[in-house]
Amino acid sequence: MNFCSQCGSRVETKVPEGDNRPRHICIDCGVIHYQNPNVVTGCIPEWEGKVLLCRRAIEPRRGYWTLPAGFLENGESTQEGALRETVEEANARVLVGPLYTLFSLPHIDQIYMLFRGPLQDLDYGPGVESLEVKLFSEEEIPWDDLAFQVVAETLKYYFEDQRRGEFRLRSGVIERLPGTERRYRTTLHE
Amino acid sequence: MNFCSQCGSRVETKVPEGDNRPRHICIDCGVIHYQNPNVVTGCIPEWEGKVLLCRRAIEPRRGYWTLPAGFLENGESTQEGALRETVEEANARVLVGPLYTLFSLPHIDQIYMLFRGPLQDLDYGPGVESLEVKLFSEEEIPWDDLAFQVVAETLKYYFEDQRRGEFRLRSGVIERLPGTERRYRTTLHE
Ligand SMILES: [Zn+2]
Ligand SMILES: [Zn+2]
Repeated sequence: MNFCSQCGSRVETKVPEGDNRPRHICIDCGVIHYQNPNVVTGCIPEWEGKVLLCRRAIEPRRGYWTLPAGFLENGESTQEGALRETVEEANARVLVGPLYTLFSLPHIDQIYMLFRGPLQDLDYGPGVESLEVKLFSEEEIPWDDLAFQVVAETLKYYFEDQRRGEFRLRSGVIERLPGTERRYRTTLHE
Repeated sequence: MNFCSQCGSRVETKVPEGDNRPRHICIDCGVIHYQNPNVVTGCIPEWEGKVLLCRRAIEPRRGYWTLPAGFLENGESTQEGALRETVEEANARVLVGPLYTLFSLPHIDQIYMLFRGPLQDLDYGPGVESLEVKLFSEEEIPWDDLAFQVVAETLKYYFEDQRRGEFRLRSGVIERLPGTERRYRTTLHE
């Protein structure tokens, strides 16, 4: 951020009075421009023990498989956002159920919320951001070709719980470890 | 938003190609400035069946009682944010436990996450944003002087669950009804 979105003047980076973090502050009108994490909301679309995944048609991670999810929009609830993303990415209709994973991804300032969502029918197919959309049983999941660690963790816990016959909310943090490789550490809370 | 925070030029409001919502787009450098909901994270600090509330020293709702909570910051997890807010507003240390309420507040583009948090000791007191900090049993809760509907709903369910002896995640939407009065409709999911 270089300029004030209110008045167009330059911003400077400093700790406002009474605060303890540097913020972007307009040198002219004095507005403080806070920057906060974004919420990504999505579904685990379920059908007879299988889960619907989308192969990404867009970067990042084009060609890799993911759960339908995207940024929560202003004016909508997390469940509405999960439903919308599932329609947009997989042309699929789910009944949005309970929250299943809540993960903080502090290295990219995102909060992931994934809800369980029984599919209402098998009439699905790729939206513009997907190359293909397919149901997978646990044995069929393309573990090496998943787009994001948060999806891998969610599916790992999901199928564990499916085998146990009882689902419970998994909440925690996924941190990216330093280095060039995609390596992560997951810490569950509770 | 009037100006581009990247280059300082004017922004216009229109629907970008491939999108379906109006966004602020820079007329010069073309950057799309998305605006998304913010996450508010906080605690229900617990001690022997009582809950710690803070009386707000700042607007909005100065003088009214609330749970310690505030905007999630970049680089922190939701649990870390809940812990930080509890220290800042109540000078209290909790062990952040399971998520208890997840409410969408679409009329103000906020997502509230409140975690149960057993107090580690009774050494608490008002931070700069609080006038006073006090433990309340269910009978003592100042129901008419709570700052926010999301706090009232959370405490209502909390004490219901306390009486039942079993806590479970409450997730849903709190909508503000049209009109001048503070009237709301809460819809629980699941
Ligand atoms: Zn300004
Ligand atoms: Zn620009």
